[in-house]
Amino acid sequence: MDNSKISHHISEQFNIELEDIRNKVLIMGGLVEQQIELSVEAYTSGNIELAEQVIKQDDEVDELEMSIDQECTQILALRQPTAFDLRMLMAVIKIIHEIERVGDKAQRIAEMAIKLVGVESRFPHHELEHMAELVQGMLHDALDAFARMTLEDVPSITERDENVDREYDNILRQLITRMMEDPRNITRTLDVLWTVRALERIGDHACYICEHLVYMIKGEDVRHLSQEELEKRVNVPR
Amino acid sequence: MDNSKISHHISEQFNIELEDIRNKVLIMGGLVEQQIELSVEAYTSGNIELAEQVIKQDDEVDELEMSIDQECTQILALRQPTAFDLRMLMAVIKIIHEIERVGDKAQRIAEMAIKLVGVESRFPHHELEHMAELVQGMLHDALDAFARMTLEDVPSITERDENVDREYDNILRQLITRMMEDPRNITRTLDVLWTVRALERIGDHACYICEHLVYMIKGEDVRHLSQEELEKRVNVPR
Repeated sequence: MDNSKISHHISEQFNIELEDIRNKVLIMGGLVEQQIELSVEAYTSGNIELAEQVIKQDDEVDELEMSIDQECTQILALRQPTAFDLRMLMAVIKIIHEIERVGDKAQRIAEMAIKLVGVESRFPHHELEHMAELVQGMLHDALDAFARMTLEDVPSITERDENVDREYDNILRQLITRMMEDPRNITRTLDVLWTVRALERIGDHACYICEHLVYMIKGEDVRHLSQEELEKRVNVPR
Repeated sequence: MDNSKISHHISEQFNIELEDIRNKVLIMGGLVEQQIELSVEAYTSGNIELAEQVIKQDDEVDELEMSIDQECTQILALRQPTAFDLRMLMAVIKIIHEIERVGDKAQRIAEMAIKLVGVESRFPHHELEHMAELVQGMLHDALDAFARMTLEDVPSITERDENVDREYDNILRQLITRMMEDPRNITRTLDVLWTVRALERIGDHACYICEHLVYMIKGEDVRHLSQEELEKRVNVPR
C-alpha cells in the first residue's frame, strides 16, 4: 500500500486518529460481512437462534456507524483537514452508511429465515447461496480495496453486479412460475423474493463503496456512470 | 425563522455561500417532489410521455446531488467551518442523498407506469393515490422544516410513517389475494407491488431527512430511535 499520502502530517496524533478511523471502518465491515454469512446460514439451515443473533447484532452495526460518523465530524472541526485527508473523511462517512444499509439487508434476510422456518416447499437453496456468494465476494473485495487503499480491483468488483442482476432476474422468474403453479404458497414465495432482493441490494452497496473509494483516492465523483465510463476514469491496467 | 445562528460570520461571502447551498437543496427537493407527482400521475393515467419525462429528469437530480455535495466539500476545505455551520454542511450532504434516493423511487414508479400501460386489471388507483398523498405530504413537510430550519413539525412527520406502513401492509395483503385469485396476472401484480413499495420507501426517506435536520439544529444523532424517544429528544411542545 502506498502510505505516502497520509504519512506526512505535521501532527503525529492526527495520523493516529485517521488510522483509528480506518480500522474502525474495517471492524464495522467485518461485522457486517459476518452478519450476511450468519443470516444466509440461518436461512438455509432454518436455525432460528442464528437469525435472532443477526437481528440483535444490528444495533451494534448502527452504533458503530454513529460513532465513526461522530469521530469524523470531530476531526473535521478540530483538525480542519484538506485535500486527501478531507476526502478520506467524507468518503468514510458515506462508506459506513453503505455498510449500515448492508447490515439492514442481513437483518431482513434473518427475519425471512425466521418466517420461513419449517416451510417445506422453500426455493432450492443452491441458487440463493450462489447469489449470496457473489455479493459477499463483492463486499469483501470492496472492503479489501478500502483497507489497501487501491483501486486496481474496483472495475472487477463493479462489473460483477451485472451477474448479480442476471441471477436475480433468473430467480425472480422461477419464483413467479412457482407462484403460478401453487398460488396457495404466494405469501411464502414472496418472503423468498424479499430475501433474494436483499441480496441483490447488497451487490449495489458494494458498488457504491467502490465509487466512494474512487472519490477518496482520485478526487473524482464517479457515481451514476456506466461500467465502461467508470473503467476509463479509474484507469487501472487490467 | 431564527437566523441568528448563521448571521454573525466574519465573512459576508461565507453567509452567501451557505445560503446558496440551502437554496440549492430546496430546488433539488422541489424537483424531486415534482418527479413523484408526475410519476404517480403517469401511473394512474397511463401517460407514457409523462413517465419518460420522469426517467429523463432523474439525471438532473443526480447532477444536483453531485454538485451540491462538491460545493459542501469545497466550503469545508476553504472555510473550515465549526459548530452549527459544520453540522449544517454534514446534514446537507446526507439530506441530498435522501432526496436523490427519493428521485430513484419516482423513476421506479415511472418505469412501472410504462410496464403497466394498457393492463386492464390494475390495482384500484385510489388506494395507491392515497398512499402517494401521504408520503408526498411527509416529504414536503420535511423539506419545509429544512427551509424554515425548525423542528416543531418533525414529530408529526415521522409519526405519519406508521400510517404509511399500515397502508402498505393493507395493499400488500390485497395484492396477494389478487395473485391467488388470478395467478396468470402475477407478473403484473408484482409490478404494482414494486410501485407501492417505492412509495413506502419515500416515507422512510422523509423520516431520515427529519433525523438529519435534528442533528443539524440540535447536534444530536437521533437515528434508529423509536418515535417516542425521538419526540423526547426533539422536545418540541405539541
